[in-house]
Amino acid sequence: MNDRILLAHGSGSKLSHDLLEKILVPPISNPLLARMDDAAVFELAGKLAFTTDSYVVNPIFFPGGDIGRLAVCGTVNDLSMSGAEPLYISLALIIEEGLEIAELLRIIQSVKDTCEEAGVQVITGDTKVVNRGKADKLFINTAGIGSIHRGLDISGSNARVGDKIILSGGIGEHGIAVMSQREGLQFSVPVQSDCAPLNKLVADMLRASKKINCLRDPTRGGLAATLSEFARQSDVGIIIEEEKIPLHDGVRGACELLGLDPLYIANEGKLVAVVSPDDADRVLKAMKRNKYAGAAAVIGEVTAGHRGRVVMKTKIGASRIVDMPTGEILPRIC
Amino acid sequence: MNDRILLAHGSGSKLSHDLLEKILVPPISNPLLARMDDAAVFELAGKLAFTTDSYVVNPIFFPGGDIGRLAVCGTVNDLSMSGAEPLYISLALIIEEGLEIAELLRIIQSVKDTCEEAGVQVITGDTKVVNRGKADKLFINTAGIGSIHRGLDISGSNARVGDKIILSGGIGEHGIAVMSQREGLQFSVPVQSDCAPLNKLVADMLRASKKINCLRDPTRGGLAATLSEFARQSDVGIIIEEEKIPLHDGVRGACELLGLDPLYIANEGKLVAVVSPDDADRVLKAMKRNKYAGAAAVIGEVTAGHRGRVVMKTKIGASRIVDMPTGEILPRIC
Repeated sequence: MNDRILLAHGSGSKLSHDLLEKILVPPISNPLLARMDDAAVFELAGKLAFTTDSYVVNPIFFPGGDIGRLAVCGTVNDLSMSGAEPLYISLALIIEEGLEIAELLRIIQSVKDTCEEAGVQVITGDTKVVNRGKADKLFINTAGIGSIHRGLDISGSNARVGDKIILSGGIGEHGIAVMSQREGLQFSVPVQSDCAPLNKLVADMLRASKKINCLRDPTRGGLAATLSEFARQSDVGIIIEEEKIPLHDGVRGACELLGLDPLYIANEGKLVAVVSPDDADRVLKAMKRNKYAGAAAVIGEVTAGHRGRVVMKTKIGASRIVDMPTGEILPRIC
Repeated sequence: MNDRILLAHGSGSKLSHDLLEKILVPPISNPLLARMDDAAVFELAGKLAFTTDSYVVNPIFFPGGDIGRLAVCGTVNDLSMSGAEPLYISLALIIEEGLEIAELLRIIQSVKDTCEEAGVQVITGDTKVVNRGKADKLFINTAGIGSIHRGLDISGSNARVGDKIILSGGIGEHGIAVMSQREGLQFSVPVQSDCAPLNKLVADMLRASKKINCLRDPTRGGLAATLSEFARQSDVGIIIEEEKIPLHDGVRGACELLGLDPLYIANEGKLVAVVSPDDADRVLKAMKRNKYAGAAAVIGEVTAGHRGRVVMKTKIGASRIVDMPTGEILPRIC
């Protein structure tokens, strides 16, 4: 087989079948995927969650992860944030002609490892190849299906006055890691992407309490966008305290150097939970025992005042409004 | 709002929210989509089908359709081919910076119209924007979920010796329509893409008979690829008769002129069914009453000989092996 992807690999031809049968399917195969019909078929019942995301991150390999791990984590996390247990995902590749097959193999291996970690299966997929110069190495779309336990109703619309805001760890690591790799920047304290599947963390939290009202992973637009969305969707105010927000030294340094606000930088392995005040401690304790949330902290609460807005008490004691981000800060970090 | 897509439209910023709330969501909105959480949540039970496809067709508008109609039909059809009733789809856009918003609006309108025709809902989605020159106007991924009636087991592996091969109409129309638009070719008999949702046709067929063993829409690789897959997956031989294969005059003319074999050209609104011989007439009659299958015909049958291979009796009485396509014939027709 050639060592680079050709247009013919995407044509439905013998070469396409070879790519599937020799490269793409074996690492991630399972009985549902192996059937190779137009759709995968399985039994499932109850309250289900369905989500999709495309990944166009540049570069496709970055400190702490790659586009394959990112694509699995992103969809696993979106399902988890609705309270669902992620079960099945789809994997659709748009490959630029000329991509090295060795790079594709590394990505597929990473998809496999991340699926194993999260306990999900790729059961259907698609591969397209576009001419050189008409894409950027590799774009991936994953969609996913999960199953929600009865009685759960987690939504950005469910925040109530008095609820506590819990953040699972330091912010901005994914965005800074990708940007530093792309721009060839070296910081004194290196930053790794936090890219991780959070479904087991969410399961731990839900075992500790059913009074988790909102859950979201602050990806594009960062913590600022997620909290603004909660404030708008639930029509409440949110107040957070700057000094309680965990921040990796490398992210702090990079943001100071570049004039960026970490509140607006993307994360790929963090979550924000809005929890009833009587259960906040219990949830926090459960989180701290999980390897992806050792630095979890209560960073603020839901208020009746300034509805639809997020306010931050700064370290020097001032208050400032945390707006929805308005422009592009770091393009193509996911 | 600007009249072209900017990078910031994909950043999770206020501009992203405006794009969603003013342009993308209103035409296709429904209660599940309108909730705007990370995942859509719904109740469903039983045997389900799940599929995904990305669409990278060039150009994005072509005679008889556009990338929006194509993306909905493709996923509706993949679900239908497993015997599922398509219910919910996801819509993920990868937009090249600089795309005219007016073009995007036309595509979304087309998504809406096609969803209405097929009776499916877009319930979750995603939008990414990549730098100018890093994609080609617009790529779309759709994934879909459908519900399969109990007792149905339709798969490319289920063809049995003696079964009839039914084709729903003329082949090659989509591929020729897209290619002629892209290359600026004018044929004496113009060809329109056959791009259409086939779920209602499949429902009509399943009402007529439960003895439909395989169903597939011959997209990339055309009729040749689909029949070759059936022969391999079911480990049977297939024989077809050239003179029974419906062919539009424009496709015939274009293929003769360009030296193309219509067996290998993509379709986006046709299906091939492998049906038990005792029910073939009943299924054919039901198909002919549907507007997308007026020219349906029995084109061949499943044989015990030449297992794993497809053989065609030509009009002049010779037999030739119909191989799996080996290279790229018409790139980016879907």
